[in-house]
Amino acid sequence: MAQRLDARDPDFPQAFADLLAAKREVSEDVDQAVRAIIEDVVARGDEAVIDYTRRFDALDLTADSLRVSEAEIDAAERQCSKETLEALALAKERIEVYHRAQRPQDSMTTDAVGVTLGWRWTAIESVGLYVPGGLASYPSSVLMNAVPAKVAGVPRIAMVVPTPRGETNPLVLAAARLAGVDEIFRVGGAQAVAALAYGTATIRPVAKITGPGNAYVAAAKRRVFGQVGIDMIAGPSEVLIMADRHGNADWIAADLLAQAEHDPAAQSILVTDSPELADAVEKAVERQLTTLPKAEIAGASWRDYGAIILVERLTQAIPLVDRLAPEHLEIETGNAEELARLVRNAGSIFLGSHTPEAIGDYVGGPNHVLPTARSARFSSGLGVLDFMKRTSILKCDADALRVLGPAAIALGRSEGLEAHARSVAIRLNM
Amino acid sequence: MAQRLDARDPDFPQAFADLLAAKREVSEDVDQAVRAIIEDVVARGDEAVIDYTRRFDALDLTADSLRVSEAEIDAAERQCSKETLEALALAKERIEVYHRAQRPQDSMTTDAVGVTLGWRWTAIESVGLYVPGGLASYPSSVLMNAVPAKVAGVPRIAMVVPTPRGETNPLVLAAARLAGVDEIFRVGGAQAVAALAYGTATIRPVAKITGPGNAYVAAAKRRVFGQVGIDMIAGPSEVLIMADRHGNADWIAADLLAQAEHDPAAQSILVTDSPELADAVEKAVERQLTTLPKAEIAGASWRDYGAIILVERLTQAIPLVDRLAPEHLEIETGNAEELARLVRNAGSIFLGSHTPEAIGDYVGGPNHVLPTARSARFSSGLGVLDFMKRTSILKCDADALRVLGPAAIALGRSEGLEAHARSVAIRLNM
Repeated sequence: MAQRLDARDPDFPQAFADLLAAKREVSEDVDQAVRAIIEDVVARGDEAVIDYTRRFDALDLTADSLRVSEAEIDAAERQCSKETLEALALAKERIEVYHRAQRPQDSMTTDAVGVTLGWRWTAIESVGLYVPGGLASYPSSVLMNAVPAKVAGVPRIAMVVPTPRGETNPLVLAAARLAGVDEIFRVGGAQAVAALAYGTATIRPVAKITGPGNAYVAAAKRRVFGQVGIDMIAGPSEVLIMADRHGNADWIAADLLAQAEHDPAAQSILVTDSPELADAVEKAVERQLTTLPKAEIAGASWRDYGAIILVERLTQAIPLVDRLAPEHLEIETGNAEELARLVRNAGSIFLGSHTPEAIGDYVGGPNHVLPTARSARFSSGLGVLDFMKRTSILKCDADALRVLGPAAIALGRSEGLEAHARSVAIRLNM
Repeated sequence: MAQRLDARDPDFPQAFADLLAAKREVSEDVDQAVRAIIEDVVARGDEAVIDYTRRFDALDLTADSLRVSEAEIDAAERQCSKETLEALALAKERIEVYHRAQRPQDSMTTDAVGVTLGWRWTAIESVGLYVPGGLASYPSSVLMNAVPAKVAGVPRIAMVVPTPRGETNPLVLAAARLAGVDEIFRVGGAQAVAALAYGTATIRPVAKITGPGNAYVAAAKRRVFGQVGIDMIAGPSEVLIMADRHGNADWIAADLLAQAEHDPAAQSILVTDSPELADAVEKAVERQLTTLPKAEIAGASWRDYGAIILVERLTQAIPLVDRLAPEHLEIETGNAEELARLVRNAGSIFLGSHTPEAIGDYVGGPNHVLPTARSARFSSGLGVLDFMKRTSILKCDADALRVLGPAAIALGRSEGLEAHARSVAIRLNM
């Protein structure tokens, strides 16, 4: 049973603050181990990658077999059901259309002073995509990372995916081909991150690494940051559902459990102004749990981190939503758009009762890689901009420099930077 | 004297690789000290901040005097010369106009299936701006950080600036007021970063911290990342100048030295197809150094990290530029636009011989906070987007869910996420 909070209780502010502060992640201290692995890969390249793969994945590779061959991808595709491949193709198509609209505009203007200025966006030259092995090996995540990179125009996408004892998820390979991944290497862990960041004889280095992973992968990404770019560090998934008395308790319970089944540290929260709905959802969760394959995980998440918050009016919930800054926000009310407009902090918003969050995980079109752990206060979901960068451009002619130069000289001197001032003055014969 | 490289030499690839790999930063290991300071500020709040300020800045404060008063800012403004204040106002105006054009568009469409989808950009709710004290206390940097935040619509901008022994740079306070900074606190170091990230009784927490600082500040920013957002970690500044035989050796030398005077670890590189220009620039640098106030710093930078690279044709230099990914790229040739179009990796490009980089530092309009240490391969200069975040929005009606639902169910099941599949199926009576 999840905890219950009531905004009318005098101790609510403290209870809500405790909910906000709850640490849902056990941070393993793997930093020293990861540091040694990275240094070893830098020093010994392929050989080190092969050694760690033998040790951690129980898999014997050679430099020649690090890369997954086209024939293997063909074979993987043949293993996938037609229905699933078609679903994957629909997802890819919709993700692509959504992200195409995110492509940024270049700008170039000449102002009244005669200065030509603006910027130009360019794709990152090469991107590495980390895909976890085993249970968390999701073909949908391959699409969500690779499609925006492709839409951005990234010329080279290299993917790494561990295949413990040689076990591969055929759908992951099929998704990679569908999304236009250029190279796939069957390695994982900190050694794969190090190989992507620094390069080996077989795995050429990339400029940025994206994709989720375990504690070792996260620590390795933090450590190679600077050498390459990285995306956000993903935490356990979250959903917050706002609903009024018209909400369908069974549907809402199903959505809370869809989040909870990801991870015992996932978090599902219902905020409602209806005590009746609160009770009905609670009962429905318990009922649905009895037949759920992942009942143990989902039950633990709901028990340890789930919450039902009762408010007098749903508009009162907006400041609470903004403080929680949920990764996923479902608004299942008649005035969903209206409430959504009031929200500042959320990774993704799902409007109305026919938009379960799972639609967004697969075929909605928006990205499912979203900010967790309250980071929607300051960051966005993955998108095309994460695979591009902007170069600013400035051009003065002699006249424009005459207009702007004196102010630059004054500011340079005020900051004690005489060479700055002189680089302008010398062109003005000052 | 800077090093000379010639692209026609057989050992050029290795020499260029060495230039790329040169470590220009001594990374001080201050992480343990910083960790203790942050924990102390979390535990003791204002009291800890006041203690560290006494110890590191030789300044006695109380909770009441942490914040700089309006009267003090008035007094600071009166200390500034009219000429400098006017230059600052011109800079602010031009930075504002440039960044206004960066404001992103929201998007909301309904597709053929009947799915309404898009995204909305919102400003980050509060931002902390770190401004270094002492010599590196630049009013121009206050503008470059605060103006984009203001243009983004950030409702609250809090600035911290250490004032060792109470010494304040009046222009920094004037720039803060001009740019619309809401609160200024006279504290710095890891203790200021901790206060902004976690909040104290006097300093309310922010959602993101930007701005440059010393090793302690950089380590503190890395450590609070996650609790709050941070901008890039800035390294020593760099310029790469491409010039042909028409280049003015004195002007180019002045630009190389303007970069070099920042820091002994700054880097200035000239790439040219003209051996005569190479020689002339080298002589001009030595000549100009003799009268430069910061000759010691600039001379050390030029000697230790400066380089002149000779190529046969300037188009051959483009792949070298992309590998160096310079923070600042000046192209002083007749066909500057043409060459610029070929470049993928640069923080900022300055076109033609009348656009010294110093113009961009102050009054050009583009931001002067730019990616260093080759990070222009994967990141952009500071801009309005750094102070906003994007929320994706999705809405299905019953019909749209009927179209998309089956694919979501298939993919959910293929990933072993039955509760995901059920959250869709339950709405379709499947």
